[in-house]
Amino acid sequence: MSTFVGIEAGGTKFICAHGQDSHDLSDRVRIETTTPEETMPQVIDYIRQVSNTQRVDAIGVACFGPLDLDPFSEQYGCIASSPKLAWKNFDMIGCLSEHFDVPIGLDTDVNAAALAEQRWGAGMDIDSLIYITVGTGIGVGAIVDGQIIHGAMHPEAGHVLIPRLKEDTFAGICPYHGDCLEGLASGPAIKERWQVESALHLPANHQAWQLEAKYLAYAIHNYSLCYVPKRIILGGGVMKQPELLPLIQINVIKSLADYIDHAYLKGHQYISIAGLGENAGILGAIALAEREFNV
Amino acid sequence: MSTFVGIEAGGTKFICAHGQDSHDLSDRVRIETTTPEETMPQVIDYIRQVSNTQRVDAIGVACFGPLDLDPFSEQYGCIASSPKLAWKNFDMIGCLSEHFDVPIGLDTDVNAAALAEQRWGAGMDIDSLIYITVGTGIGVGAIVDGQIIHGAMHPEAGHVLIPRLKEDTFAGICPYHGDCLEGLASGPAIKERWQVESALHLPANHQAWQLEAKYLAYAIHNYSLCYVPKRIILGGGVMKQPELLPLIQINVIKSLADYIDHAYLKGHQYISIAGLGENAGILGAIALAEREFNV
Repeated sequence: MSTFVGIEAGGTKFICAHGQDSHDLSDRVRIETTTPEETMPQVIDYIRQVSNTQRVDAIGVACFGPLDLDPFSEQYGCIASSPKLAWKNFDMIGCLSEHFDVPIGLDTDVNAAALAEQRWGAGMDIDSLIYITVGTGIGVGAIVDGQIIHGAMHPEAGHVLIPRLKEDTFAGICPYHGDCLEGLASGPAIKERWQVESALHLPANHQAWQLEAKYLAYAIHNYSLCYVPKRIILGGGVMKQPELLPLIQINVIKSLADYIDHAYLKGHQYISIAGLGENAGILGAIALAEREFNV
Repeated sequence: MSTFVGIEAGGTKFICAHGQDSHDLSDRVRIETTTPEETMPQVIDYIRQVSNTQRVDAIGVACFGPLDLDPFSEQYGCIASSPKLAWKNFDMIGCLSEHFDVPIGLDTDVNAAALAEQRWGAGMDIDSLIYITVGTGIGVGAIVDGQIIHGAMHPEAGHVLIPRLKEDTFAGICPYHGDCLEGLASGPAIKERWQVESALHLPANHQAWQLEAKYLAYAIHNYSLCYVPKRIILGGGVMKQPELLPLIQINVIKSLADYIDHAYLKGHQYISIAGLGENAGILGAIALAEREFNV
């Protein structure tokens, strides 16, 4: 039996666990994200302890971005121009491979979550899907024709531009683009626009959700035409409002106006809620390890 | 030496040629696009004649869409719900493989052009690029991490939604979406908006080009974040206005606002003009044959 170590490397904490799949994850250990010098030795200790009792076949890291994932780049496997300055240019793959001679899979947290949803969640057996998380930010992970999309780096499709409703004068909160999707429709944008402490404090019949559904539907219109996924999986804190999914579904159908025609688009599962919830990150890390092992 | 037959299957004409690469294309034959019963026997005759004098190693077809290119679909290799009713559900790969026992590559005209640009044009040696044609319609072919993007079908990213300028009240001409990118910025949209016979009749200093550059830049902002290409190649009739490229480049930089950071994006070739011009289609068909032969 293979054992995989998964590391969910987030901006405030690293979660480490090991196991073979979604059902047998063992001992989740939480390590504070401070500096590479403080955090990584604890991560390495964790992996070493696991190795003492069983064979570790691969390690997967689902990491905050931006990452350099271009195999042609000299900085491959490094954290790129991060606002977390202590981690800028940190060589995640290099650091781990100095200590462990096993395959190491690295990808962004949102790409890893997309992979976990494909492996064990709402996208099982689907070779082309996108995973969208709508929370503190908006992130998109895309798996098309069986491959996680990277390109020169990795998608940052939460920052796409969309049409504005004429009557909407909210400036948007994205420090780069103002009213890109993330600037208009992320959790913090909803809080700012409606002056509430949490998006989920807004009642289900509040006009906020109609607007949120329209803007997310415009973006999904664009993703549907760019990636042509067979399924779109929605996760993140904002999606905990149960009224939102059907509103988005209706608006996407209206917006695409039957222009593209394939069976998946017409299926009731085309836009689905994520199946793994809070576990998507750590399971994504395990899925990255598994994939790297099977390459 | 391998000989490849390329077939550029367009809505009004099929162009057939053969050769090994971009430099030695022989006898381009033009066949009218009427019905499969009339057109295809002439195509088959052409291929047969080539086979009489040399070994044909593969056939490539760069075809009008929509196509079913999902290998899991029963309709794989067929033309899908085309407005060209005589061709609806026509099995292009099936028809050719009945007569020729060689690998047959099929893809959309725009994906084929992207492949040709990567093979012999403005995207040589680039593993992630997109090709955008701005003409009668707007089409996008994407090659990411070395693979042509398909998903459930193939991208139709000319129909993405983009923000409108506040002062712009033009309704757009897309019969499905009104003011999607194609509805606002294709050649016919420019003609309709400015009431001219051809977009290229508008002088270089006409405000039309400022507006065109802005809308194309918004779309390129979105493509840059979704596909993360290393190069964006622009072709099609509208791009024959030489003032347009630098205007687009300036607007894309402004719109992305340094949010994504990779070396390709900063390079002066990030947004380039297509290198193959009118030959992109037939060369795309040859490139599809070559790729299928090398699989």
